Amino acid sequence: MSRFEFDITARDGAARTGVIKMEKGRIRTPAFMPIGTAATVKAMFPEQVKATGADIILANTYHLMLRPGAERIARLGGLHTFMNWPGPILTDSGGYQVMSLSKLRKISEQGVEFQSHIDGETIMLTPERAIEVQALLGADIIMVFDECTKYPATHGEAKVSMELSMRWAERSRKAFDGFDHAKHSALFGIVQGGVYEDLRIASAEALKKTGFDGYAIGGLAVGEGQAEMFKALDFTVPHLPEDAPRYLMGVGKPADLIGAVRRGIDMFDCVLPTRSGRTGEAFTREGEINLKNARFREDPKPLDDKCGCPACQDYSRAYIHHLVKSKEILGAMLLTWHNLQFYQDLMEGLRAAIVGGHLSDFKGL
Amino acid sequence: MSRFEFDITARDGAARTGVIKMEKGRIRTPAFMPIGTAATVKAMFPEQVKATGADIILANTYHLMLRPGAERIARLGGLHTFMNWPGPILTDSGGYQVMSLSKLRKISEQGVEFQSHIDGETIMLTPERAIEVQALLGADIIMVFDECTKYPATHGEAKVSMELSMRWAERSRKAFDGFDHAKHSALFGIVQGGVYEDLRIASAEALKKTGFDGYAIGGLAVGEGQAEMFKALDFTVPHLPEDAPRYLMGVGKPADLIGAVRRGIDMFDCVLPTRSGRTGEAFTREGEINLKNARFREDPKPLDDKCGCPACQDYSRAYIHHLVKSKEILGAMLLTWHNLQFYQDLMEGLRAAIVGGHLSDFKGL
Repeated sequence: MSRFEFDITARDGAARTGVIKMEKGRIRTPAFMPIGTAATVKAMFPEQVKATGADIILANTYHLMLRPGAERIARLGGLHTFMNWPGPILTDSGGYQVMSLSKLRKISEQGVEFQSHIDGETIMLTPERAIEVQALLGADIIMVFDECTKYPATHGEAKVSMELSMRWAERSRKAFDGFDHAKHSALFGIVQGGVYEDLRIASAEALKKTGFDGYAIGGLAVGEGQAEMFKALDFTVPHLPEDAPRYLMGVGKPADLIGAVRRGIDMFDCVLPTRSGRTGEAFTREGEINLKNARFREDPKPLDDKCGCPACQDYSRAYIHHLVKSKEILGAMLLTWHNLQFYQDLMEGLRAAIVGGHLSDFKGL
Repeated sequence: MSRFEFDITARDGAARTGVIKMEKGRIRTPAFMPIGTAATVKAMFPEQVKATGADIILANTYHLMLRPGAERIARLGGLHTFMNWPGPILTDSGGYQVMSLSKLRKISEQGVEFQSHIDGETIMLTPERAIEVQALLGADIIMVFDECTKYPATHGEAKVSMELSMRWAERSRKAFDGFDHAKHSALFGIVQGGVYEDLRIASAEALKKTGFDGYAIGGLAVGEGQAEMFKALDFTVPHLPEDAPRYLMGVGKPADLIGAVRRGIDMFDCVLPTRSGRTGEAFTREGEINLKNARFREDPKPLDDKCGCPACQDYSRAYIHHLVKSKEILGAMLLTWHNLQFYQDLMEGLRAAIVGGHLSDFKGL
């Protein structure tokens, strides 16, 4: 079993499809990673997540270090055992959640001091600790600790922030290499630099110099809009190594994924399919629908008649409308399952289009 | 396929085990019916409910007539199709929920006028309408409309209430026989009379005179305590037909079920395993435990090491503690599954003990 290997098997323009091989399993790319924030993909059994076609899930370092704690998960055998997901797991570094969820943050060269959003405890997160936490969790793909640059940010602000992230990336690399767990996992760098081409390029070059198994693009999908995001990919991706996976963090809607794959992105994560499943929304081949809508109250059709998931095979829109209106847990279970199936079907469609050389004709499911 | 047939295959004292045969399937007795109030056993897929060993579920007429409406469910193909449960379904008559959930009730000889707890609409529920609603839902076992006698009640109050219920039972019988659905379903009467022996006997005799497929005992487990409840069974059950199923409504804890089976009860329903699963409680062979308790935070053992359910096979108490503390939906999913498995294992244990002739030695799982 290889620690980390990325084989590109077909290309179509800038897009590529292939497979990442790791000890815990193979990841078909382009890949969509469902979010398992608190060591659970909300409202799903792990077997169901796997059944949708997911090869890898994402878990949140920030949440897990606060509750139940990384050391505790390590003592309980690691995150895979804890949550009953035997396949690959990617953990983010916590940087994004520190900024979006915690209070009273103090950023210094050393790291970020913040107050837990759960119990108010003061906690210091440094590149070294972020890597240690991820190693304790037993993550397969570990992310460097970075500062998520605010949006909008001036060129000057984005530069200062990006350069701090690059120094933290180097420290993350050193910390990672010091752990025995490095023999069984991979480390990804994160390109920052806001919407500024020169900063993105400088960031990519700095990361390449340090050297990582994969390269993420962070700080996008934060409000800049799809056109700006695609522009940032257009000028950033060419500066990333050709033979390493490229991961666009926190993206996105189906059209975002299609556009990003066309620009050479291999991996994605996003709360959209799971979160929207808990608010009554379904992704379908005819667009998004919200099951709260009264027009579905007597609709005997499935959510999406071309979908093979159990929610579509065994239940009507009328029933799911009833569940959502009645705030029944099964409503969230069915919609989450369906939305994850939709996203995995989308990725399968993208992979097939690249293999077939007709990605430019692929407009979605 | 028989409409309704009850074969008793073994006896042990007053207890008996057997099978109810209906068009939609067989029901092994003594049987525990999980509650599917709003056309869903909360936090469970129907296949999972079936996998625990449940042969029949209970759905609530009151909830379904208010939302999404009985006529709507009928137009959508009936409750079995609507909720994807192909097996037998018992529906209560709505009488209990009218008293416990609705507002501004006005009871008359005709029926009960009440305000919906959902939208405040004024609704009249009569024996005829209660049966019609259940027929529209397509229920397999239909319950007569009754007044759930308040507790405590004087002998005089309990008598007036019981006698009204008996007149409603007769009207329910007539209404039921007028529906074509009667050819495919069964009708159960409900014994009332509070804790008063003479009233319970009079009620049982009145129901027998009308004639039903099965006989339920209502108005118990309303605060009288286990000793009073068992006493009521002791003087009521001998007056019920030997060859028809006896159903103790809304009961109960494992020890209640064991004691009631010993007294000749064949069927049960209760929210306890499902509801307590959503508040962190688990039934185990070592008693009830609450997973919120900090003593489980690093406990690597399963909920119950003799249980074969997925919650016990694949997850630790520490993980479920974490899910419950984090208010994760999967916590409710796992605990509900386990608790339903526990209850079905208990029923299987009771059936085996009766077959083996050692029910008096059976103290629980």
